[in-house]
Amino acid sequence: MKRNEFQLRVNFGDTDAAGIVYYPNYFKWFDIAGHQFFRSIGLPPSKLMKEHHIILPLLDVGCTFEQPLYYDDIITIKTIVAEVNRKTIKLKHEVFRGETRTGHGFELRGWVKEEDGRILAVMIPDDVRQLLEEDGLGSCRQINPWLSA
Amino acid sequence: MKRNEFQLRVNFGDTDAAGIVYYPNYFKWFDIAGHQFFRSIGLPPSKLMKEHHIILPLLDVGCTFEQPLYYDDIITIKTIVAEVNRKTIKLKHEVFRGETRTGHGFELRGWVKEEDGRILAVMIPDDVRQLLEEDGLGSCRQINPWLSA
Amino acid sequence: MKRNEFQLRVNFGDTDAAGIVYYPNYFKWFDIAGHQFFRSIGLPPSKLMKEHHIILPLLDVGCTFEQPLYYDDIITIKTIVAEVNRKTIKLKHEVFRGETRTGHGFELRGWVKEEDGRILAVMIPDDVRQLLEEDGLGSCRQINPWLSA
Amino acid sequence: MKRNEFQLRVNFGDTDAAGIVYYPNYFKWFDIAGHQFFRSIGLPPSKLMKEHHIILPLLDVGCTFEQPLYYDDIITIKTIVAEVNRKTIKLKHEVFRGETRTGHGFELRGWVKEEDGRILAVMIPDDVRQLLEEDGLGSCRQINPWLSA
Repeated sequence: MKRNEFQLRVNFGDTDAAGIVYYPNYFKWFDIAGHQFFRSIGLPPSKLMKEHHIILPLLDVGCTFEQPLYYDDIITIKTIVAEVNRKTIKLKHEVFRGETRTGHGFELRGWVKEEDGRILAVMIPDDVRQLLEEDGLGSCRQINPWLSA
Repeated sequence: MKRNEFQLRVNFGDTDAAGIVYYPNYFKWFDIAGHQFFRSIGLPPSKLMKEHHIILPLLDVGCTFEQPLYYDDIITIKTIVAEVNRKTIKLKHEVFRGETRTGHGFELRGWVKEEDGRILAVMIPDDVRQLLEEDGLGSCRQINPWLSA
Repeated sequence: MKRNEFQLRVNFGDTDAAGIVYYPNYFKWFDIAGHQFFRSIGLPPSKLMKEHHIILPLLDVGCTFEQPLYYDDIITIKTIVAEVNRKTIKLKHEVFRGETRTGHGFELRGWVKEEDGRILAVMIPDDVRQLLEEDGLGSCRQINPWLSA
Repeated sequence: MKRNEFQLRVNFGDTDAAGIVYYPNYFKWFDIAGHQFFRSIGLPPSKLMKEHHIILPLLDVGCTFEQPLYYDDIITIKTIVAEVNRKTIKLKHEVFRGETRTGHGFELRGWVKEEDGRILAVMIPDDVRQLLEEDGLGSCRQINPWLSA
């Protein structure tokens, strides 16, 4: 299945008074990593919307927290396609600080056509399915060189 | 099992360019509703921390989205204890706009002692267990009168 | 000049690892208080948009921080019209914890017509100007009774 | 005066139902750019705190909005020291999409010692002052190569 990797730094505003990352931010990162995944395989969500009237709304999400994350941590989010169903796609996201996985979760997104203000789940086209099911990294793996400095 | 209800308005900043609520905000609301639940049964998290060194970290969360939410919607979050395990508590949250449920999810929280900078999951005391397992609404059901106006 | 008051609780997610409120949240509150102000005088932003194609974009904002705010603090945001110009309105917001002012700031918002996808600042109508310049509280002062409990 | 540049992408969650960036996010970016500025000159805030008990709390901030920003925009935040006072530092931030400036603002931060739970504004040391007042870019200018791709 297609996969991607994405790095970012935990910002001060991502933490809470317990001194660790406030948990809803994991989903903010999953959303960012999901958009980045689609960009990396040549299907940027903004283009899907403008050219094909396709949106990718969330149906179901979840996250398991394994280790706390702190301000200034550099994290890598590893995203992989877990399922390609008839009208939905499931992405699995894992968050790592170095070698340590700090949490993992998933996003189940619909493949939905927006037309005349109405929305309707539609079949995922064969070429998209094939692209998603192929092994390999997206063409623009986002490991920020300056982050590892 | 003990339960609570909590109302709030969807703010403009809770929405995204799709014109609906940005999904990580559901977890922000679950967190708020969870804290409010513990307040409503006489166990405010700030007091648990200061007096008993007990924190309630998230172990596992999930959410299923059923209907979009829009700016200015008044929502009611219905929270109920779903499980009281030896060292963890599971809260179920349902979000309603009027009679329509727009989403539902859960938070699995640990009962964790923080001592000398170390944290350790500990047994939930019997009186807390009893309080959580009793039927009934928390003593301060937060239905904002001005919101229903 | 017209004014309004609005109460809310500082949520856990509003804090950062310094144990105090993360400062951009002041502007999230200013935005909420601004929308609530317009609601309180019978000009809810959602109605202005739908019925009159008027939006109130931000042109200039500022905030001065005087005291830290903590998790669980109940704050009152006092909003007052500071200026009604030809095509802009300036709101002043003050944030109080009890009698202590913790910060104050302003929002300068345009009175802007959106038509056929184009936006244009237009003259503030006389009846709106009069409403804004009259002394008095908005008709629905939002002091949540359950918050003071 | 010392300066730095920092690039990021406007995420979907940064927008609101008006289809543009929700304004408090400008301050989230200013905060990120401010921390990055101090990192780039060898004074990472986490190190200032741990080794010198110095924190950089916000005293005053402001922002002027000139052009809307949209989902997927790549922005460059240009940060420069505007003032080095006895106990405070003023950073000026400008946000650009390509050649277009979309907004600009400032952060006035204190140079504050935290000792035994008490905080006190203290004199900015001469070597820090000199570092801030020197012309030049920080040593790690963060232009993400993959963003410009």
